[in-house]
Amino acid sequence: MPVKKKTMHVPRRLCEAYHYSKPVPFSRGMRVDIAGAAFLFISGTASVNEKGESVHHGNLTQQARRTFENITGLLESEGASWKNVVKTTLYLADMRYYEVLSRIRLQFFKSQGLTSFPASTCVEARLCRPELLVEVEAIAIFNSGRRKAKK
Amino acid sequence: MPVKKKTMHVPRRLCEAYHYSKPVPFSRGMRVDIAGAAFLFISGTASVNEKGESVHHGNLTQQARRTFENITGLLESEGASWKNVVKTTLYLADMRYYEVLSRIRLQFFKSQGLTSFPASTCVEARLCRPELLVEVEAIAIFNSGRRKAKK
Amino acid sequence: MPVKKKTMHVPRRLCEAYHYSKPVPFSRGMRVDIAGAAFLFISGTASVNEKGESVHHGNLTQQARRTFENITGLLESEGASWKNVVKTTLYLADMRYYEVLSRIRLQFFKSQGLTSFPASTCVEARLCRPELLVEVEAIAIFNSGRRKAKK
Repeated sequence: MPVKKKTMHVPRRLCEAYHYSKPVPFSRGMRVDIAGAAFLFISGTASVNEKGESVHHGNLTQQARRTFENITGLLESEGASWKNVVKTTLYLADMRYYEVLSRIRLQFFKSQGLTSFPASTCVEARLCRPELLVEVEAIAIFNSGRRKAKK
Repeated sequence: MPVKKKTMHVPRRLCEAYHYSKPVPFSRGMRVDIAGAAFLFISGTASVNEKGESVHHGNLTQQARRTFENITGLLESEGASWKNVVKTTLYLADMRYYEVLSRIRLQFFKSQGLTSFPASTCVEARLCRPELLVEVEAIAIFNSGRRKAKK
Repeated sequence: MPVKKKTMHVPRRLCEAYHYSKPVPFSRGMRVDIAGAAFLFISGTASVNEKGESVHHGNLTQQARRTFENITGLLESEGASWKNVVKTTLYLADMRYYEVLSRIRLQFFKSQGLTSFPASTCVEARLCRPELLVEVEAIAIFNSGRRKAKK
């Protein structure tokens, strides 16, 4: 069967949105395997901790780092890394933070050893909780032969 | 030839946006077949009927249901179901409706027999018509060998 | 190896965002090859010139054309065309321009010889620079055997 699908989980960083006191029915990410390639569709991810609580209120820098680290956790849970991310979409609660976000993003990408960068879109949008300042979704694609190798 | 592409249609639920009195040049969805897998890219879909009219003015619950049902129709037109949806993006005209939308979405997903949920992002955005309260796009991926089986 | 990934470039139309005086770490697009198919993930693209400057201030028609032409350049850099675009997402700074954008988009698609249209979503969003009125991202998928043939 050419297509396999599974949900993604990283409980030490992010609980299931479905387990919130007011459940939200989405997975943190979905993995799809096709013809030797794995696609990871990573949900809109924000500065939320393993209990589902918003963290770093009012601090874009820390929120952005936590967001990127949450996504790192999701990528690693499937044996992938930021080097496999082909597209990100960033939703920023206030476009005045765009330059700050660019700097944090660049620092973070360098810390991950990226020498080229994903395709990306960044627009302003109000997010699901008023205290959240940034939300990021991502698509990663990689050779599934590498799955969980040496982990 | 490894890649095949076709537009998606569900005229009993949604007319072509291209046939609006003021034509909008997009397809309701695009199917792409690659290496035994079918990808469905479903356009931003809202509470619109088979004549292209907005329905359920002012009622988020009914608009959300109509939106999900319109997408169901598009999925079924290619032999797919919500179980094949790997990612949704929800645009909500007013984020104060987030919890209501979560409840409707959960009810709907249960009615479709989902035990795991798609990856998803939900942000606030003004939509193409002021009376529309929610718009949803989706990506489904499935084994194309299954296409139109037993329908 | 089933998955190959490369960044996309069209320097005669768009400089690298990474080379802006305030660098923004994204690629103009990412190409991924899988099982005989090429996926192009084209970043949010606006009315920006080869020096990274916004052009056509205050003129949606010209901004939209420049945006579509910038994407044409990215598609052509990988041997693709608008006929291979399966999904677009349009972010419009002011939804009152929706009809105007639809007309321009239709004209443009006809000029590219399209007889069917991509799946698409269009929402209102504030963009990264206040003078930009529209931003478009796209996904194209095509037979990679065709790459750079007869160009």
